[in-house]
Amino acid sequence: MELIDGNQIAAALIAELKTEVNAISGRKPCIALIRIGDDPASLSYVTKKEKSAAEIGLTSRIILPPVTISQPELFALIDQLNADPTVDGILVQSPLPKHINEVAVFGRVSAAKDVDGFNTLNLGKIAQEDETGFAACTPAGIMELLARSKVDLKGKHVVVVGRSLIVGKPIALLALQKKAGANATVTICHSGTSNLPAMVRQADVLVAAIGRPEFITADMVKPGAVVIDVGINRVPDATKKSGFRLVGDVHFPSVSALASKITPVPGGVGPMTVAMLMKNTVKAFRLQTAH
Amino acid sequence: MELIDGNQIAAALIAELKTEVNAISGRKPCIALIRIGDDPASLSYVTKKEKSAAEIGLTSRIILPPVTISQPELFALIDQLNADPTVDGILVQSPLPKHINEVAVFGRVSAAKDVDGFNTLNLGKIAQEDETGFAACTPAGIMELLARSKVDLKGKHVVVVGRSLIVGKPIALLALQKKAGANATVTICHSGTSNLPAMVRQADVLVAAIGRPEFITADMVKPGAVVIDVGINRVPDATKKSGFRLVGDVHFPSVSALASKITPVPGGVGPMTVAMLMKNTVKAFRLQTAH
Repeated sequence: MELIDGNQIAAALIAELKTEVNAISGRKPCIALIRIGDDPASLSYVTKKEKSAAEIGLTSRIILPPVTISQPELFALIDQLNADPTVDGILVQSPLPKHINEVAVFGRVSAAKDVDGFNTLNLGKIAQEDETGFAACTPAGIMELLARSKVDLKGKHVVVVGRSLIVGKPIALLALQKKAGANATVTICHSGTSNLPAMVRQADVLVAAIGRPEFITADMVKPGAVVIDVGINRVPDATKKSGFRLVGDVHFPSVSALASKITPVPGGVGPMTVAMLMKNTVKAFRLQTAH
Repeated sequence: MELIDGNQIAAALIAELKTEVNAISGRKPCIALIRIGDDPASLSYVTKKEKSAAEIGLTSRIILPPVTISQPELFALIDQLNADPTVDGILVQSPLPKHINEVAVFGRVSAAKDVDGFNTLNLGKIAQEDETGFAACTPAGIMELLARSKVDLKGKHVVVVGRSLIVGKPIALLALQKKAGANATVTICHSGTSNLPAMVRQADVLVAAIGRPEFITADMVKPGAVVIDVGINRVPDATKKSGFRLVGDVHFPSVSALASKITPVPGGVGPMTVAMLMKNTVKAFRLQTAH
């Protein structure tokens, strides 16, 4: 069994982006990070993104509206950044306060600056294999992990468990694309799938994104499968100071004994997300400035 | 075996739309049909659409630019129709002359008037289960055929053969939606699928959209499966006056003996396409005029 080390692969990607950005003369790509209020999870995510941007040499502009910002005010802020030629990518950090409509906010960000890949137009572009689109960072990160672990999906059966808009559907569409590394046959399963274990057992490459701790057990995995675990779940653990530990959607101890390659949690898909955000920002810069 | 009669189901839908449109007071929904040049296939398609529109009581506006129209001129024409509040739906009939970029033309039609469902934004909306989107007429017609034939996809395994943008991908996304009648587990196969027969044999509901005459044979079909044949292929036939006959992607004589329900070719999916175009036009009218 080979561990797919997300930390190491993300570090390699970040190093490459650093070299690439270093070679850009003049204005560097810029990402605007909007963090509303003081939610601790938001704070930690934005800090991580800011740090990665700095490491690569990207400019980041941190905007910290108060938690009381109204939706029209937030729209006005986004419109201003959409119109600003010195801003290439815009990210509105979730979770957002309850009085703000998250989908409407993601839709307000210009598709050309939607480096998070949550805009409807970008989802359509992924389906259309239009290379000017931005794939959401988690599924894009999975494709990068697979490519850099020498897993070619051509002729393989990819089984995705979970049909979310942010992971399940876009990873299915990416795996299906007619380009090198992709070209898979794809099955999408979910909580309503009949005989889920038998369906999942067909996977040459299994993507678990169902949001249930250790749901995928050894009996559901074909020996030799490549297993990508997208889940991050807290389970109570009295032996930990925090009182919990993080587990994925895959029961790692039993499944790792069967898999040919597998991502750990944490340290698998997670670290790729921030790296792909940076990659999307550089791409947005190139598309908008024709560099 | 029960034959799914597309002519009959389309006629029922058209009758319902007629009643619905009759009840609209004031301006009736209007579809603009652009037919460029005198391609005989285009002519026959547009005539059929015009006739259906008239039968339902929709207004149709037929625009016949010469085959020499330039792309900028065509764009200007589309822009004018996009801006016209008395036009609810716009269809640019393919095939287009070679000097016109088809994808660019489909993208030029306003998403709100894209009753053909080819616009990138509408494809994204199908993935997002946004009910304001327009599904392309063929996959939308398949969902309608299934619903009116009392085939509930919930818990079923739908296998789609073919990953085209106009049929394969949207039908997969529609079958996967979390709404009544859908909720299927979905597999998308294609020409690069390993062991295609075994994969297709899993289908409770099989959608054949691969564009190869009589490709799906009895050995690839599970007894009792529902079979939807999207293909329309001409094969030489010396016994016919025309010298050819139409066949689907399914070998009807052998597969119909196994299937619980099956669509014929012609007379299955085909007739639904025009009916769904009319349904989309009424929907576009309602969304734009808030009727």
